[in-house]
Amino acid sequence: MIILYTGNGKGKTTAALGQMYRAIGQGMRVCIIQFIKGKWKTGEMLASQSFSNNLTFKTMGEGFTWNSKDINKDIEAARFAWETAKDSINSSKYDMVILDELTYLIKYKIITNEEVIEFLKNRPNNIHIIITGRDASNELIEVSDLVTEMKEIKHPYKSGIEAIKGIEY
Amino acid sequence: MIILYTGNGKGKTTAALGQMYRAIGQGMRVCIIQFIKGKWKTGEMLASQSFSNNLTFKTMGEGFTWNSKDINKDIEAARFAWETAKDSINSSKYDMVILDELTYLIKYKIITNEEVIEFLKNRPNNIHIIITGRDASNELIEVSDLVTEMKEIKHPYKSGIEAIKGIEY
Repeated sequence: MIILYTGNGKGKTTAALGQMYRAIGQGMRVCIIQFIKGKWKTGEMLASQSFSNNLTFKTMGEGFTWNSKDINKDIEAARFAWETAKDSINSSKYDMVILDELTYLIKYKIITNEEVIEFLKNRPNNIHIIITGRDASNELIEVSDLVTEMKEIKHPYKSGIEAIKGIEY
Repeated sequence: MIILYTGNGKGKTTAALGQMYRAIGQGMRVCIIQFIKGKWKTGEMLASQSFSNNLTFKTMGEGFTWNSKDINKDIEAARFAWETAKDSINSSKYDMVILDELTYLIKYKIITNEEVIEFLKNRPNNIHIIITGRDASNELIEVSDLVTEMKEIKHPYKSGIEAIKGIEY
């Protein structure tokens, strides 16, 4: 099953975390691929230590921050992350793979929409894939089984409140 | 801070779970009040054992299932859960309290909107409250700091796929 959390509101990555939590409770092996550097912060990393046997974190290469001075290095790191994602899904080592913020790679044309859709259509059976990120393509919505749009109704950081420990990270 | 996850899409309770996970990673003490009987299932209950020191689950009374033959018994159980929620928030024992599916109590007029808003406005400082459920009132949105609407774009169970272990429960 492919679950897609998209939209401009908060809660996409948070829901993926909850999904991971529930899966691990059922004894599943979960791999999280983080496509945006530094996105996953202290809270989830610390809590994850409780689950170390069943949880694997794979983060982007150091070079990839969307504001590097060397665009080629960014692209190389992003491509490497995508290859890692595909290998992880094909490895039979995991029951669930979370592709956090994957949609940005498509949006910024690091990988093509077609390449992602083609891969997802031919994925192994019996693996659950959770994808998060804004601006999911229509084809990505089409290939997914469950799609929720997280729509921003109210966002506190716009009112000047700073990110809060244990909530935002 | 009050976070509200509302809307008709999947991911509201899942995001609350992720929020709990992140908070526990930061050493916070979390209490979850479940207003709908049987809503939280095996996956999250099993995973929660890893966090038993920092996590408290409080579930509704047995009588409250929204389809009991004795409506008065339902109302009594729901009122008891609401009193438990208020006591938990006021107790200073928790840094975060999750009120899962609270909105249903308002919707079905078990508690009044005014009562909830009044309590939330006068809550203790330094506690984070996460509220989930469909059809949040405008006043509940108003009193919340961060509000995301989970909007259903695609739902697999409508296509005849049954709830899947580790995903849905």
